[in-house]
Amino acid sequence: MPRLTIARRMTFSAAHRLYDPALSRAENERLFGKCANPRGHGHNYVLEVHVSGELDPASGMIVDLKWLKDVVESRLLAEIDHRNLNEDVDFLAGVNPTAENLALAFWQRLEPALRPRAHLARLRLWETENNFAEVSAD
Amino acid sequence: MPRLTIARRMTFSAAHRLYDPALSRAENERLFGKCANPRGHGHNYVLEVHVSGELDPASGMIVDLKWLKDVVESRLLAEIDHRNLNEDVDFLAGVNPTAENLALAFWQRLEPALRPRAHLARLRLWETENNFAEVSAD
Amino acid sequence: MPRLTIARRMTFSAAHRLYDPALSRAENERLFGKCANPRGHGHNYVLEVHVSGELDPASGMIVDLKWLKDVVESRLLAEIDHRNLNEDVDFLAGVNPTAENLALAFWQRLEPALRPRAHLARLRLWETENNFAEVSAD
Amino acid sequence: MPRLTIARRMTFSAAHRLYDPALSRAENERLFGKCANPRGHGHNYVLEVHVSGELDPASGMIVDLKWLKDVVESRLLAEIDHRNLNEDVDFLAGVNPTAENLALAFWQRLEPALRPRAHLARLRLWETENNFAEVSAD
Amino acid sequence: MPRLTIARRMTFSAAHRLYDPALSRAENERLFGKCANPRGHGHNYVLEVHVSGELDPASGMIVDLKWLKDVVESRLLAEIDHRNLNEDVDFLAGVNPTAENLALAFWQRLEPALRPRAHLARLRLWETENNFAEVSAD
Amino acid sequence: MPRLTIARRMTFSAAHRLYDPALSRAENERLFGKCANPRGHGHNYVLEVHVSGELDPASGMIVDLKWLKDVVESRLLAEIDHRNLNEDVDFLAGVNPTAENLALAFWQRLEPALRPRAHLARLRLWETENNFAEVSAD
Repeated sequence: MPRLTIARRMTFSAAHRLYDPALSRAENERLFGKCANPRGHGHNYVLEVHVSGELDPASGMIVDLKWLKDVVESRLLAEIDHRNLNEDVDFLAGVNPTAENLALAFWQRLEPALRPRAHLARLRLWETENNFAEVSAD
Repeated sequence: MPRLTIARRMTFSAAHRLYDPALSRAENERLFGKCANPRGHGHNYVLEVHVSGELDPASGMIVDLKWLKDVVESRLLAEIDHRNLNEDVDFLAGVNPTAENLALAFWQRLEPALRPRAHLARLRLWETENNFAEVSAD
Repeated sequence: MPRLTIARRMTFSAAHRLYDPALSRAENERLFGKCANPRGHGHNYVLEVHVSGELDPASGMIVDLKWLKDVVESRLLAEIDHRNLNEDVDFLAGVNPTAENLALAFWQRLEPALRPRAHLARLRLWETENNFAEVSAD
Repeated sequence: MPRLTIARRMTFSAAHRLYDPALSRAENERLFGKCANPRGHGHNYVLEVHVSGELDPASGMIVDLKWLKDVVESRLLAEIDHRNLNEDVDFLAGVNPTAENLALAFWQRLEPALRPRAHLARLRLWETENNFAEVSAD
Repeated sequence: MPRLTIARRMTFSAAHRLYDPALSRAENERLFGKCANPRGHGHNYVLEVHVSGELDPASGMIVDLKWLKDVVESRLLAEIDHRNLNEDVDFLAGVNPTAENLALAFWQRLEPALRPRAHLARLRLWETENNFAEVSAD
Repeated sequence: MPRLTIARRMTFSAAHRLYDPALSRAENERLFGKCANPRGHGHNYVLEVHVSGELDPASGMIVDLKWLKDVVESRLLAEIDHRNLNEDVDFLAGVNPTAENLALAFWQRLEPALRPRAHLARLRLWETENNFAEVSAD
């Protein structure tokens, strides 16, 4: 049997800096280059949320895309859109907001919120049009 | 050995509505929202067809992309492009044309048409620039 | 002095057919080809609304983009998104919904709704990723 | 005679907030909504620089695109990429960094830097994939 | 009265090199850098053809987009797609194929071919996703 | 445990032709159609390099994206960008430059260059906006 997933693409805009507070400013600049600028920079992030699950024969859907959008907005985007990811977000406290760390943190936040109606299969986070981090279930 | 696939991206424009004829209009609107509008709406669908297979050493190709395009056009797009997916398409009779159901129906139609020259590995159907359904072989 | 405009890109999904009810079906097919299919097809339209105006020194804006978005949604998209443009839309009654006619009708609907806060400078309507109609003030 | 221009598309990532220091925080939030978040948010800005000029018959170019890219990088992007537009940029001191104000400030900075080899004809600044401000010479 | 145009986006793939045969190889490399490579490089060009004209009340169109596509294909793309622009194209003989020179040559070729049904209003030629040349009627 | 990858998208422009020197010109044209044009054509290729590996807790990264970009540029793009893939590239000598053969050759070149810091997980090579070849590790 082939495997079925659906995905929703969403965007948010946030500030961040790459910075390890245990290190000196010079050491941070050596590690993170221009991304360590103390007053931050920012991105239009693009988030793709891919989910799998049983096809409901009554609706012809795994889950309603509107429900999926609402879960991602209420559980994730409401806390990160138009925010500073180093300073404003409780669930990112102490996290250096690299694309990898953000994708893992978003996975941990969305995965239980989608169950049992859907299984998070893949989460891709574009930081710019030229790079992304991706977490997948297998 | 790494795994090799090739893919072709194609587009078609069609009308559809999400509607279960066994249910009342009110029930359809509760289930499908604005997508249940009786006179329909439509999309510029984007279809990605990914195939795997043996690399032919004479041509340096799995299959000629022109052949792949011709199969998808003659077996699929000729029946759905510039059509109403609820009313005009024989192989979709009785199918509620959600992205999931369309992707599965297209898979069933293309998979035997490509064999034995190629194996359908993945089929991704974008309904808008923000959502897709995907069927994959593994 | 250079000229300043701002623009908002928005999308909607709708069904339509190209059809002149004064002509026979054969004549419609001769004129409009596959676009004349009686049960319609559809598109994900992309609408760009460009406005000019005085820069407000207090806000640093011509107009708030949120206000611009609200006007386009309430005066235009609320009537056309997820609709059939031939049958569902009062202000398009009797209009053959070519890209040209739609762009002109949208211009006539938005231009007075934006005044006097902003002037509609250009309206571009993409029907597919490969074609658009554009109306501009000069 | 038709008119000839060439354009270069470039990107930069920056943090900003919309904020008038002469106003209270509540008043800023009323005016700028979530864009007034005190710790900022950010964008992947896309900048299009369009220039006109004489076609040099020896090179077949108005100006070398590499020269155009170097001017924009050295005179503009070097000061704004991976920076906080409210706090890090001398030529934006006291400017509320709306898309309109940024586009005008970038115009004033680039226009003399390109002369006399080229004339700045249009500058489009995309703040997100859905909105831009544009300054043009006529 | 607002001004109305329609546009068609088309693509072609071609090889070229920037080279003035009257100059030495060293001088060509100084002028054109890596673009002067003697065996050439290539691009997926994107061509946008914008036309204006009277709106035909019978069809609701300036011109049929299929006719516009056919003219561009038969008069232009048939001679340049999958070709070497320095060596294969009669109407480009002796032309150094910069984006500027190509856009002007395409304008001269298409402008009379579209008359009197339509007026060529603007021709934009993208050489890469980051640069284009544009010719416009005013 | 979910699986983590990061990816970098890069572009290059090159000329190529599809041609088997052991065959006649007529046979090449039968096999490869317009792609067999003796003087070549070309593309703006888009290359996506996906890598997996251990997340370094000190940096919050699998590998620094700048390091990944530098490896791809120095080991691959320096030899193929603005080149003729049939004639200019040592590691492609004797290779018919189909998308499949290029993707495999690029994999073989990048895979050892990234180890042991990262594992090449997937390499996608877009030849046009409508087709790609992809090599993946599993």
